[in-house]
Amino acid sequence: LIKGFPEVIFSQGKTTDQVINIMLELLKVNNRVIATRATYEVYKSLKERIPDAVYFDRARIIAVLREDVEKKGKIVVACAGTADLPVAEEAAVTAEIMGSNVERIYDVGVAGLHRLIDQIDKFYSANVVIVVAGMEGALPSVVGGLVAKPIIAVPTSVGYGANFNGLSALLTMLNSCVPGIAVVNIDNGFSAGYLANMINLMVEENKK
Amino acid sequence: LIKGFPEVIFSQGKTTDQVINIMLELLKVNNRVIATRATYEVYKSLKERIPDAVYFDRARIIAVLREDVEKKGKIVVACAGTADLPVAEEAAVTAEIMGSNVERIYDVGVAGLHRLIDQIDKFYSANVVIVVAGMEGALPSVVGGLVAKPIIAVPTSVGYGANFNGLSALLTMLNSCVPGIAVVNIDNGFSAGYLANMINLMVEENKK
Amino acid sequence: LIKGFPEVIFSQGKTTDQVINIMLELLKVNNRVIATRATYEVYKSLKERIPDAVYFDRARIIAVLREDVEKKGKIVVACAGTADLPVAEEAAVTAEIMGSNVERIYDVGVAGLHRLIDQIDKFYSANVVIVVAGMEGALPSVVGGLVAKPIIAVPTSVGYGANFNGLSALLTMLNSCVPGIAVVNIDNGFSAGYLANMINLMVEENKK
Amino acid sequence: LIKGFPEVIFSQGKTTDQVINIMLELLKVNNRVIATRATYEVYKSLKERIPDAVYFDRARIIAVLREDVEKKGKIVVACAGTADLPVAEEAAVTAEIMGSNVERIYDVGVAGLHRLIDQIDKFYSANVVIVVAGMEGALPSVVGGLVAKPIIAVPTSVGYGANFNGLSALLTMLNSCVPGIAVVNIDNGFSAGYLANMINLMVEENKK
Amino acid sequence: LIKGFPEVIFSQGKTTDQVINIMLELLKVNNRVIATRATYEVYKSLKERIPDAVYFDRARIIAVLREDVEKKGKIVVACAGTADLPVAEEAAVTAEIMGSNVERIYDVGVAGLHRLIDQIDKFYSANVVIVVAGMEGALPSVVGGLVAKPIIAVPTSVGYGANFNGLSALLTMLNSCVPGIAVVNIDNGFSAGYLANMINLMVEENKK
Amino acid sequence: LIKGFPEVIFSQGKTTDQVINIMLELLKVNNRVIATRATYEVYKSLKERIPDAVYFDRARIIAVLREDVEKKGKIVVACAGTADLPVAEEAAVTAEIMGSNVERIYDVGVAGLHRLIDQIDKFYSANVVIVVAGMEGALPSVVGGLVAKPIIAVPTSVGYGANFNGLSALLTMLNSCVPGIAVVNIDNGFSAGYLANMINLMVEENKK
Amino acid sequence: LIKGFPEVIFSQGKTTDQVINIMLELLKVNNRVIATRATYEVYKSLKERIPDAVYFDRARIIAVLREDVEKKGKIVVACAGTADLPVAEEAAVTAEIMGSNVERIYDVGVAGLHRLIDQIDKFYSANVVIVVAGMEGALPSVVGGLVAKPIIAVPTSVGYGANFNGLSALLTMLNSCVPGIAVVNIDNGFSAGYLANMINLMVEENKK
Amino acid sequence: LIKGFPEVIFSQGKTTDQVINIMLELLKVNNRVIATRATYEVYKSLKERIPDAVYFDRARIIAVLREDVEKKGKIVVACAGTADLPVAEEAAVTAEIMGSNVERIYDVGVAGLHRLIDQIDKFYSANVVIVVAGMEGALPSVVGGLVAKPIIAVPTSVGYGANFNGLSALLTMLNSCVPGIAVVNIDNGFSAGYLANMINLMVEENKK
Ligand SMILES: Nc1ncnc2c1ncn2[C@@H]1O[C@H](COP(=O)(O)O)[C@@H](O)[C@H]1O
Ligand SMILES: Nc1ncnc2c1ncn2[C@@H]1O[C@H](COP(=O)(O)O)[C@@H](O)[C@H]1O
Ligand SMILES: Nc1ncnc2c1ncn2[C@@H]1O[C@H](COP(=O)(O)O)[C@@H](O)[C@H]1O
Ligand SMILES: Nc1ncnc2c1ncn2[C@@H]1O[C@H](COP(=O)(O)O)[C@@H](O)[C@H]1O
Ligand SMILES: [Mg+2]
Ligand SMILES: [Mg+2]
Ligand SMILES: [Mg+2]
Ligand SMILES: [Mg+2]
Ligand SMILES: [Mg+2]
Ligand SMILES: [Mg+2]
Ligand SMILES: [Mg+2]
Ligand SMILES: [Mg+2]
Repeated sequence: LIKGFPEVIFSQGKTTDQVINIMLELLKVNNRVIATRATYEVYKSLKERIPDAVYFDRARIIAVLREDVEKKGKIVVACAGTADLPVAEEAAVTAEIMGSNVERIYDVGVAGLHRLIDQIDKFYSANVVIVVAGMEGALPSVVGGLVAKPIIAVPTSVGYGANFNGLSALLTMLNSCVPGIAVVNIDNGFSAGYLANMINLMVEENKK
Repeated sequence: LIKGFPEVIFSQGKTTDQVINIMLELLKVNNRVIATRATYEVYKSLKERIPDAVYFDRARIIAVLREDVEKKGKIVVACAGTADLPVAEEAAVTAEIMGSNVERIYDVGVAGLHRLIDQIDKFYSANVVIVVAGMEGALPSVVGGLVAKPIIAVPTSVGYGANFNGLSALLTMLNSCVPGIAVVNIDNGFSAGYLANMINLMVEENKK
Repeated sequence: LIKGFPEVIFSQGKTTDQVINIMLELLKVNNRVIATRATYEVYKSLKERIPDAVYFDRARIIAVLREDVEKKGKIVVACAGTADLPVAEEAAVTAEIMGSNVERIYDVGVAGLHRLIDQIDKFYSANVVIVVAGMEGALPSVVGGLVAKPIIAVPTSVGYGANFNGLSALLTMLNSCVPGIAVVNIDNGFSAGYLANMINLMVEENKK
Repeated sequence: LIKGFPEVIFSQGKTTDQVINIMLELLKVNNRVIATRATYEVYKSLKERIPDAVYFDRARIIAVLREDVEKKGKIVVACAGTADLPVAEEAAVTAEIMGSNVERIYDVGVAGLHRLIDQIDKFYSANVVIVVAGMEGALPSVVGGLVAKPIIAVPTSVGYGANFNGLSALLTMLNSCVPGIAVVNIDNGFSAGYLANMINLMVEENKK
Repeated sequence: LIKGFPEVIFSQGKTTDQVINIMLELLKVNNRVIATRATYEVYKSLKERIPDAVYFDRARIIAVLREDVEKKGKIVVACAGTADLPVAEEAAVTAEIMGSNVERIYDVGVAGLHRLIDQIDKFYSANVVIVVAGMEGALPSVVGGLVAKPIIAVPTSVGYGANFNGLSALLTMLNSCVPGIAVVNIDNGFSAGYLANMINLMVEENKK
Repeated sequence: LIKGFPEVIFSQGKTTDQVINIMLELLKVNNRVIATRATYEVYKSLKERIPDAVYFDRARIIAVLREDVEKKGKIVVACAGTADLPVAEEAAVTAEIMGSNVERIYDVGVAGLHRLIDQIDKFYSANVVIVVAGMEGALPSVVGGLVAKPIIAVPTSVGYGANFNGLSALLTMLNSCVPGIAVVNIDNGFSAGYLANMINLMVEENKK
Repeated sequence: LIKGFPEVIFSQGKTTDQVINIMLELLKVNNRVIATRATYEVYKSLKERIPDAVYFDRARIIAVLREDVEKKGKIVVACAGTADLPVAEEAAVTAEIMGSNVERIYDVGVAGLHRLIDQIDKFYSANVVIVVAGMEGALPSVVGGLVAKPIIAVPTSVGYGANFNGLSALLTMLNSCVPGIAVVNIDNGFSAGYLANMINLMVEENKK
Repeated sequence: LIKGFPEVIFSQGKTTDQVINIMLELLKVNNRVIATRATYEVYKSLKERIPDAVYFDRARIIAVLREDVEKKGKIVVACAGTADLPVAEEAAVTAEIMGSNVERIYDVGVAGLHRLIDQIDKFYSANVVIVVAGMEGALPSVVGGLVAKPIIAVPTSVGYGANFNGLSALLTMLNSCVPGIAVVNIDNGFSAGYLANMINLMVEENKK
């Protein structure tokens, strides 16, 4: 991990006890630790042992941050709304904790193009854009056609039928006719936030 | 087949002799016969036996039309350009021969959204819209978000890698978050033109 | 959305609170709102807050309709029975609420062909036919071979084994040797009803 | 192999020399040998060495039959026409050589149901029915809905796009809602003919 | 359905009430009705309304048989044991109810070949052999290599990992290098029993 | 497109004439145009009409560059050798033409880890790392475990058998347990080079 | 089974009663029986009937070992940690019970390469190496590039999204560019332990 | 690579010149080099430059062996015949060159079980067994049920239809109900021979 970055626990598939113990272990040598994919139940139990833990519920992230990090630059995280929100928030909160300013644009879907076009200026001032989309996953292509910025596309497993748990959105994003779009695993908001932050900080640190 | 419609031969996988013989057979009892997926070579041989055959080369359609049909209403056929053209033309020529006016809009891709928006009026006057797209196949969703018309989406096999011979575009279209989009088989311009024409004629015939 | 059409909430994957709040929000500016894929439990809770809500249980649709819409034309919705019924009803109720007369033909399967042939006249008077089928999904092809109408085919996830959650029925419908059949996503009765209604109204409105 | 049955060479993927040598070897101890999936070129070369070889060109079968077998009972082989013919013929010729009477019904497709219904009597007098179909592969279900006989369904690789080289037809047949249909590999006319003949002979031999 | 055959209800996906009501309805005009894929819970409720119903628990079949059918001929049903038993029993009980004698051979797996070879004589006296297998599904090929009888292969969904819910066994059976093996859907013991019985009765009825 | 960037023609699937004509057309209004996936044959014909065209043969890129661009920063392109070279070079040359310094490290495979470790310093001075890999596609994970830089992973279609034309490498990269790796389409060196250059220039431009 | 090896029950999909009864049956003629994939609940019930049963909880194995087996040689079982542990332990405990010394190396992942390199000597003294990995499954390739020993790779179903329940790790391992790696089914620690032990014992027995 | 082992060139996808140049380069520092997947054409050209090269045509391997290696122990390579032969020979020749005695058993298929049983003694004296099989790939399970030796299973791409280029055989082998079978990539005879030799030598070297 890059220096200053928090240690990270992937909670999914771990018991509450396992998450708490790993967290306690990591806090011995780290000032900043987060646990992603954590339920509220895990948080409540962990909070009893680690009172300064905080919970980002939409992002499903528990964070213990005993040192402050100044936020720099700007990342836009865009999605179409309700269903894709947990993944978008995982990306956004990850990037914020790691040191980036994040602007959320959560009401832009392919079905309502004008809302995207109305807010296009917000994208121009970002160093990196994360686009989260489920179902047919066309949003990254549309954003990419309008904004000449590095785009990290996150397919979500939102959908049904021929969506095949996110396969449809994943393939759409990989096959985009717009160059400059790179893709992470289905529902992997964390990796998107991590990568976007790395790029954003590199740009900002070089500014000085 | 609906009355007035031509008989149709699917040439792919048939020998030149088979296409010619079926065509001759059908012309005994039909005034109008077409052969789709026909190469220029097949056309040249067939032309020697059936001198009034004509060839739509971009659409790969041979037509023998011994009776005129008045064109009615309007169908828009839209795609992003060069590579998807054979499929778009198969749809367009099919619909024209069967009795529809067709307006082609062949320079509208997701990567250049403004060209689509500039021509959006042309879509409003159509009874049906056919959208042909390969690679990520996002165009039907984008058109569908802007135009409240029945949309027939045609995925093409254009692409490579994770495109899987059109699977990517097919899944995109089936999973569209925009309602009112129906999908035909990969590269099946014929069925799209056939269906669009059927709807268009129904609307127009009812006008009187 | 076309004017006069209801706003639509897709309830699946939303909490009861989310559905109720979105419904209340939309009712501020809309006379007609529906929620698809809604369980009876959601309906009961919502009913307490919105007493004029009604529930179409077989279709799993909650509707708040504060304005009447005259029904026009005719759509046929056909399927083989019990298991495919929820999807067929989603299509039928959607089309009815949006302004179409719907005739349900729910006892026609490939295994009992004569029942289909006995009722074939009912199909001839429709502007559009929706065919819902699971398992091998052959019904749209069979109907399409008998009826020269636009057919919207809806594969369902009904089946087991090599059905692969509806993939089998989906592929059957996409590969139909009968032209003029267009396909929507697996289980997507809503989109089928929406599209059929759009076509039906276009035909009827032009009648005058 | 059951006694009286010919030895069989699967020529596909073998060189002309390999086919000829295996044939010569087998003829030393067999009166009846056939080679399936054999091109006309292989036949011509083989004929020079084995003058009493005969070629069934539509079935792509070379046969050296130095003993006669009386044909018994009846198998129907049905398909929709041109493209599926090589597979249908492979089944039919295999069954004939092995000792069954075969009636071919090669003009019955789902798109022209009346032609099937017109000839339905022919199916009733068969002991076994082989149904060959490509594209959506719905024909076995339709036949099975009309005829209470053992049905062997043979999917073919005829089709394109979402047909995925016969996968679509294969899945359709496996998922048939009509019981009593069993399926062989895509394009495997030989195995269908072999099995149908085995059943047909068993029925006939028991007659006496 | 062939005369004398019972009516059949597929219970999976139906409520207890639906199964009971369909059963009552069918019993008005049928002497013999069965319900497949029925749980013991459904049976207990149904038994209260229909006291002469019996339950074949390993086969998960409820049967109401108000008329006797003489059993004829012989079908062998073979599998490797415990896990595949429900599917094997569905096949066996279906065939017995429909009029066939069935011999069960339930301890023959590929991993213990000698047990199969020890009992090979039992297969020779059958008219039809049903082979049920999960995991790699190799048993039908092995039986087919030893026994020249019509073989109906039933892949089961038993397995894990790269088994993909029975896909592995299904593909094995379709690709068998032994001719004369036909395959039904994954876990579809009913269709296998139905088809085997149809063949068996045909052979036996012709005996006289 | 970002200002200063060349226009790009995707030659695959276009005729020589089409590539030349599009090139001539674009050169009327652009000083810099490139054609990717171009064969040497296309280059030779084009060269006759456009004498200042140059050919990057390993990258399969034709370039007409009538204006110079100063190269900035640094991108590393890494792969294991021979077979992946065309894709690696497509990425490298694209990035160079668009304004980045590129260091090629073409002898680092998972099978010879020490060669990677020996050159690890070269990676530390890059702003972005492109890792190209076929077969099992594990190289990006290994590099990512050693280097805290944004990594763009490019799966190639190199391999056979269970590689499924690059699917294996694609899935490996998407599932990397190392965060900060983003993936483009199979064989899409162009998009990787385009994105890497965009990030690299952003970092460098901010330096001043 | 090789002499001295325990009898093995695969508990998954069996009821507690079935496991206990099979265990009791096998103990009549075997001194050593194990049950894999057994939950703690099954163990507790079984323990009441068979008091000398022991439970390896991380391996999910119940063992009744009434005879001792001297452990020989050495097998290394390696994995990256927590999530893959149950599969790694299934392999390790299986091999130990069957007569091998096992060294566990459970903290070596691709993301932390140095931990692997630090312990590389431990691998050199093993006769066989089992590498267990989920997600992208790259660990066997990396170990194989460093250690010239027979490697048995076990993909696990650990992961999400484009992991497709272990398919990603499975394909990675099959496509390894390092020769000498053989693969077992997803999550099949048992078969890996069984095979590694067989090789290890063969080597050791020959030593004398 | 283990000491004494030859260097290996994978010729597939390399030009004749590339293979020759790599061979010349490797011969500067190696006494033993082989090239797999090499055509006879490549061999003829290479032979002009390297006169002591020899060609194993069935194995498609060019070898330059300037030092002798004593062959030890025994590996059995088994397959069903003609079509799988090139893969079986790639395995056998690889193992022989690397230092193992190999016994080929090339006439044992699932369809003719007695031939396998007749030669079963030959398997008992081997240290490792390689089983090569296409189509349904059942042979490794059958051998594994009879022989308690480490089995390396090699699926081949031989087959058609639902074989999906070897996927069927691959899945069969991975899902084997017989433990102790490990699988390599489709058609990867080289890796099987390499691994079998490594195990065989380990056993033999320990003998002294
Ligand atoms: N049953 C359904 N299946 C698919 N899409 C639907 C369904 N019901 C509604 N929709 C679409 O989902 C949109 C509402 O989605 P949401 O904003 O998530 O509630 C509507 O505008 C419809 O286009
Ligand atoms: N276990 C089964 N698997 C597949 N199909 C079955 C099964 N049991 C009954 N069927 C078929 O399902 C039909 C009844 O379906 P349903 O009308 O939905 O109850 C019967 O006529 C059978 O053809
Ligand atoms: N090798 C490549 N792979 C994928 N996309 C490419 C490649 N080269 C160029 N492109 C894209 O294709 C577009 C040009 O496509 P076209 O108009 O069909 O020539 C460019 O603007 C690029 O975005
Ligand atoms: N037939 C084969 N199949 C798979 N891998 C092979 C084969 N032959 C050689 N290899 C591997 O490929 C490596 C050489 O690859 P390359 O450097 O591309 O020639 C060798 O070290 C082997 O590990
Ligand atoms: Mg979307
Ligand atoms: Mg597109
Ligand atoms: Mg159906
Ligand atoms: Mg058909
Ligand atoms: Mg089995
Ligand atoms: Mg690699
Ligand atoms: Mg891993
Ligand atoms: Mg085989």
